[in-house]
Amino acid sequence: MDLSRIMSQLKSFVDEREWGQFHSPQNLAKSIAIEAAELLECYQWDDKADEIQARHELADVLTYCLLLAEKYQLDVEEILLEKLEINRQKYPVEKSRGKSEKYDRL
Amino acid sequence: MDLSRIMSQLKSFVDEREWGQFHSPQNLAKSIAIEAAELLECYQWDDKADEIQARHELADVLTYCLLLAEKYQLDVEEILLEKLEINRQKYPVEKSRGKSEKYDRL
Amino acid sequence: MDLSRIMSQLKSFVDEREWGQFHSPQNLAKSIAIEAAELLECYQWDDKADEIQARHELADVLTYCLLLAEKYQLDVEEILLEKLEINRQKYPVEKSRGKSEKYDRL
Amino acid sequence: MDLSRIMSQLKSFVDEREWGQFHSPQNLAKSIAIEAAELLECYQWDDKADEIQARHELADVLTYCLLLAEKYQLDVEEILLEKLEINRQKYPVEKSRGKSEKYDRL
Repeated sequence: MDLSRIMSQLKSFVDEREWGQFHSPQNLAKSIAIEAAELLECYQWDDKADEIQARHELADVLTYCLLLAEKYQLDVEEILLEKLEINRQKYPVEKSRGKSEKYDRL
Repeated sequence: MDLSRIMSQLKSFVDEREWGQFHSPQNLAKSIAIEAAELLECYQWDDKADEIQARHELADVLTYCLLLAEKYQLDVEEILLEKLEINRQKYPVEKSRGKSEKYDRL
Repeated sequence: MDLSRIMSQLKSFVDEREWGQFHSPQNLAKSIAIEAAELLECYQWDDKADEIQARHELADVLTYCLLLAEKYQLDVEEILLEKLEINRQKYPVEKSRGKSEKYDRL
Repeated sequence: MDLSRIMSQLKSFVDEREWGQFHSPQNLAKSIAIEAAELLECYQWDDKADEIQARHELADVLTYCLLLAEKYQLDVEEILLEKLEINRQKYPVEKSRGKSEKYDRL
């Protein structure tokens, strides 16, 4: 998986439509939440989603995430690794194994 | 940006904690929506977020997105390109340039 | 259940803190989404919520809903009855009985 | 505003369609989050919503909130007053006046 290619295509898509003007960080954050809820709607009444629909909604969430990362000039892999390290600290294996509790309730 | 490395680290993180049992598609979809709202909270009252906080929340959204993609054995780049092509059709440049309207109102 | 009493207490609470300046419609809409996700978090991994926590989060969602209704000078009962009538049309009993499908898939 | 009348109409609406079977607490919580995001979508790119649309989406959020309250046999006014009292403690007037900071940052 290489995101640089898709990133440059995404930027052209936005630029051609002159949509950069709408993409303030808060508007992108709203958009991520809106798309995340459309993804959730695939599972509103049970665990069985229409997989094609779910795939498209997941892509929408990811698209706005990439645009927000781009806005702040963040490297996606880097911020994922950084957060993973934080989570390793918050959820030590021996305390969290097999438990879904939040770190402050472990 | 290469997501395969982070993907395998994520999987180890989850496996070591035996958290796979909690990661049904719908639970991951809920988690994406929950984290998206935590990201949105960085912009609750204005457009100026604490950037470190926003970066961590964005990473959380992305993490659950990757886990859901993995669940369905989807290639992230592929689904992004597929959706981008759909959006190119839905939003032709000449009709959507400079406009934030949804495709069904263009 | 009578909401006028609580409405006037809510307004005093906001006024005393001079928070009206933060309560633009979009900020209230963001707040509703944020609180709705905190409520959802009570059910992140299963259907069993901490009921006290869920009750508080539900109250938070409702509080921001009432503030938005107030902003637009809407009567809550009225808009609920109006929407219920729309839903009666969208979901005729004979077509929707026992089905969770959305109206456009019935 | 009197919610008991609307509450009994809501219950008939649900019962006639035999939808109670879908209304587990977690499904209602998902539905609240989904509708909250549809409300947020009215403000996706700016603060100016189509007010009729916003009114309908707000009614949808409230409808699912009432159904969840009903599920737990909660009195809406009561839980609102209870939470308001908690918020009065969390946000003392002298510390929070004119500030949008969260209580743990005041």
